Amino acid sequence: MTATAPSETLGGPGAATGRVPADRVDDAYDAVARVNRAEVWIGLRERDEVRAEAEVAEGPLAGLLLAVKNNVDVAGLPTTAACPTFATGPAEADAVAVARLRSAGATVIGTTNLDQFATGLVGQRSPYGGVRDARRPAYVSGGSSSGSAVAVALGLADLAIGTDTAGSGRVPAAYQGIVGIKPTLGVVSTEGVVPACRSWDAVTIMARDLATAGAAMGVMAGGPGTRAWPADAPVGAPARPRLAVPDELVAMAPGWAEAFGAAVDQARTAGCAIVPIPFGSFLEAARLLYDGGLVAERHAAVGDFVDTHREDVDPTVGAIIARAGDVRASDMLRDRERLDALKRESLALLTDCDALLVPTAPGQPTRADVAADPVGVNSWVGTYTNFCNLFDLCAVAVPAGEVADQGDGVAQFGVTLLAPAFGDAVVADVAARVRGLGSEGPSDRGTPGDGAVVPPLPWPAAAGLATTELFVVGAHLVGQPLERELRDRGALWCGPARTAAAYALKALDTTPPKPGLVRVGAGGAAIRGEVWRLSVGALGDFLAALPSPMNLGAVDLEDGREVLGFGCDAQSAAGGADITRHGGWKAYLAAR
Amino acid sequence: MTATAPSETLGGPGAATGRVPADRVDDAYDAVARVNRAEVWIGLRERDEVRAEAEVAEGPLAGLLLAVKNNVDVAGLPTTAACPTFATGPAEADAVAVARLRSAGATVIGTTNLDQFATGLVGQRSPYGGVRDARRPAYVSGGSSSGSAVAVALGLADLAIGTDTAGSGRVPAAYQGIVGIKPTLGVVSTEGVVPACRSWDAVTIMARDLATAGAAMGVMAGGPGTRAWPADAPVGAPARPRLAVPDELVAMAPGWAEAFGAAVDQARTAGCAIVPIPFGSFLEAARLLYDGGLVAERHAAVGDFVDTHREDVDPTVGAIIARAGDVRASDMLRDRERLDALKRESLALLTDCDALLVPTAPGQPTRADVAADPVGVNSWVGTYTNFCNLFDLCAVAVPAGEVADQGDGVAQFGVTLLAPAFGDAVVADVAARVRGLGSEGPSDRGTPGDGAVVPPLPWPAAAGLATTELFVVGAHLVGQPLERELRDRGALWCGPARTAAAYALKALDTTPPKPGLVRVGAGGAAIRGEVWRLSVGALGDFLAALPSPMNLGAVDLEDGREVLGFGCDAQSAAGGADITRHGGWKAYLAAR
Repeated sequence: MTATAPSETLGGPGAATGRVPADRVDDAYDAVARVNRAEVWIGLRERDEVRAEAEVAEGPLAGLLLAVKNNVDVAGLPTTAACPTFATGPAEADAVAVARLRSAGATVIGTTNLDQFATGLVGQRSPYGGVRDARRPAYVSGGSSSGSAVAVALGLADLAIGTDTAGSGRVPAAYQGIVGIKPTLGVVSTEGVVPACRSWDAVTIMARDLATAGAAMGVMAGGPGTRAWPADAPVGAPARPRLAVPDELVAMAPGWAEAFGAAVDQARTAGCAIVPIPFGSFLEAARLLYDGGLVAERHAAVGDFVDTHREDVDPTVGAIIARAGDVRASDMLRDRERLDALKRESLALLTDCDALLVPTAPGQPTRADVAADPVGVNSWVGTYTNFCNLFDLCAVAVPAGEVADQGDGVAQFGVTLLAPAFGDAVVADVAARVRGLGSEGPSDRGTPGDGAVVPPLPWPAAAGLATTELFVVGAHLVGQPLERELRDRGALWCGPARTAAAYALKALDTTPPKPGLVRVGAGGAAIRGEVWRLSVGALGDFLAALPSPMNLGAVDLEDGREVLGFGCDAQSAAGGADITRHGGWKAYLAAR
Repeated sequence: MTATAPSETLGGPGAATGRVPADRVDDAYDAVARVNRAEVWIGLRERDEVRAEAEVAEGPLAGLLLAVKNNVDVAGLPTTAACPTFATGPAEADAVAVARLRSAGATVIGTTNLDQFATGLVGQRSPYGGVRDARRPAYVSGGSSSGSAVAVALGLADLAIGTDTAGSGRVPAAYQGIVGIKPTLGVVSTEGVVPACRSWDAVTIMARDLATAGAAMGVMAGGPGTRAWPADAPVGAPARPRLAVPDELVAMAPGWAEAFGAAVDQARTAGCAIVPIPFGSFLEAARLLYDGGLVAERHAAVGDFVDTHREDVDPTVGAIIARAGDVRASDMLRDRERLDALKRESLALLTDCDALLVPTAPGQPTRADVAADPVGVNSWVGTYTNFCNLFDLCAVAVPAGEVADQGDGVAQFGVTLLAPAFGDAVVADVAARVRGLGSEGPSDRGTPGDGAVVPPLPWPAAAGLATTELFVVGAHLVGQPLERELRDRGALWCGPARTAAAYALKALDTTPPKPGLVRVGAGGAAIRGEVWRLSVGALGDFLAALPSPMNLGAVDLEDGREVLGFGCDAQSAAGGADITRHGGWKAYLAAR
């Protein structure tokens, strides 16, 4: 069997560019018909209805079509969770996540197929049909967000909502060669979402590129009932991120370990330091999720329905959930205690690292493989995803090349970057900066010059989550002695900038040497510096440690913006040599 | 029966003042002998050993004797949890909480009795004897931290470690007329503590006054494995705290509702706004803890021991824990889901309030009452405490007068202030400021003048948890238009201060009018202002919003300290009228 999806339907980041929304809708429906993947959808909406909505959509996501996994409410459509009788009628309102994306201009094209009750990582456990890989139909799509991933990969949608408890937002993204963002638990509201395991359920987003996925995640995150974003959460990754990797890979299909090695090489080439760590505690947690008492959460979620509708339920899913009803609470709690110990052990291994890099999946099974061993193959697929939510990690799954798969075509290979809760900006930043991970370009952010490419802000900062800019002109410039004071606080370099032509620069008598920026008004010069972005918590911590005679206040930039920046005590400035003519501290240092 | 404890043994805050540590130890052992309350102790140490340790103790808690509830490890003493066979030998090391207090100079005098496995609120469920009220031996001490509370009340110890899952650190504090601090869950390490319900266990401190308890809590909090203190946690309460109170009291013993009314009046007199709220969701959560599946946590904690040692276990405790082993995980999880809903509902009711004020207990039972209905009376006692840890609230229980109790002597009446997680400074601050709550004095912090009494910092700030000072000289002074910018960010007024005699003050052209503080060196004046304390997160947020021409940097104070403070752009200062001769902004405004 060969791929049925011609490459032009695997739309790239620019698929919707320069087109009017109605064209995009027509293209999508034409593609839906052409690709002949009825199993992707549970509730595809009427073209005219979607077109009418798209034409009036406004906001940063206007023009983008959104597919929604059918365990997430879309007003007017039944939420089946892939079990037809589970839905007793159309949902009355959008889930919070859907509503937020729609408010930002996204248009829902339909609801997508999934492993029933989001129980599975293969995309085959559904009466609406097993979802086939976009390129290689003999292979599984990955799940449980199977329809969402394939809809995006085939260009039928630009964005898709998934959910992720054990990897359901990451595995299908990897198999389908797209990006999946699994945010920190609780950052996106789960209101209007059918629970799988309430303690570990996350709403995810999928898109063909990281920028689109990040824009959507920035819109989805936050709001009533969500976990407060910490005032000191990092805004990005350091110049040379330290990436933990498993010291030994287990269970990898032929060729897949080599693909991961190539991704690690890409990260190293991009300036990341690679830190092998023992991985046993991560793998043990993954096994706890399937083999222990934690599965009881699945019965608490939908067990009442499953117990009374066994004939309506997928046999594999039904067996898992029914068994989960027999777990004793004290056994589940003991497994939770073991899990907490594994979490402590695992997070301690990550202490000196910025993120963890793993293969998203160890290999991709065929649909026949899954049919032969539905539970065993599913567990294998989750080897590198299961521990994530159990440890309260955030993750971004990105494409990382291809791998020739057992002589049977070419598989999409993906890696996942993970970090402790609220490290969402760190993983997004690393993913964006490593050439070859994801579809975006590189960054020279580590060694910026005035002409450096400045990549987009990671989504949390772009979404305005408690961050601010800081204009620096001296010892905190990249390469200068105090740059680390910003880096150590999770600050992100955002590029060069100049003040309005209203400032003087003085050389102060400090250790290390620093310049003092002084507003002089008319007759002043434009002074070169750099803009950083940092959390308000980091800013306060930085300011609390700021030594005399430096201060922080508003600075006018050349582009008309007023940003927070460095100044200095007037008395100290008066005593310093005037170095304004150099136009900046680095030029002055070079000329000395 | 009349009280056996003469009032001089109910040591006050100054009990240890001006004495050498050896005297304090001798006094304590003499009191131990005199009060004849053998049931207080499980492991009283040898006097000579304690005296030798006390004599060499150093640190802020030096000279203070510490009693430790016997479910918390003290090196060299068996940790029985009030079940003799549960301890297989002496503990090898101190629990983290004990070790931290010892490092700060506290000396352990012994381990104290408790409701077995910390299961109870009455202090009667122990083979070491039911612990009697310090003043009225026919009444229960309260529990489960019974021995700890009575040891402190009788002056046998200055500090006591308790634990608190459903009220065990608060109820006995209330009955014994002392202070109990129940910090936010996870802020004090539970390493070395026998779990009762792992999800909701907290280590508490008891002392006769809030300052001593706060000093100890500041030492105990933090360290490996504890929950990170948020960068933007409030440092104190606002000038006029808004206190929620139940709109209707339930289950109160005769006279106890009136005692609560008097405490509410005290709070109102101290400037608090009182906000009645519906209390049903709080009470329902309390019932869930006893009647539902949540109790399974107790079996996970010590069920293996209890199931195999039933003959060694208190019958009431054994029945509770054994039954907890039969709970189905899915039932427990459904109760957790209900609990989460109740938490959301309850926290929403507190949104516009700074803290919740409740009676700590609805009444105090006699030992005979408890013997007649061990479970029912225990549940009644926990009416106003059970919900706290389930909702992730922090609390401080303080004495609030007395109540003539059913013609049978005078009961100590106590109230508890509660706030959402990490509001520890808020509840400590309110408790310290309301005259009549706790043993400390009042504050005029709300309307400070240069002679105002400045109460001690709430313990989180005193412990240095991510806060900093800020010196203000103008529109942020108390009573000035921008004071609320600090109050709204949880900042705490810390008193008046003056700069070193090296500054000029200029009247700036801003809205609202503001002064600019400018360092001029020799020839400058000392300028009056105020010191505030705020979290680094609040500082960063404040700075990010600071308008031109203001800035923040180091300011030298008259007392030689350098603190962060307000300055202004030199150019703006140069254009402002010199008002230095007024010595401060308020004097200038008054003279205009």
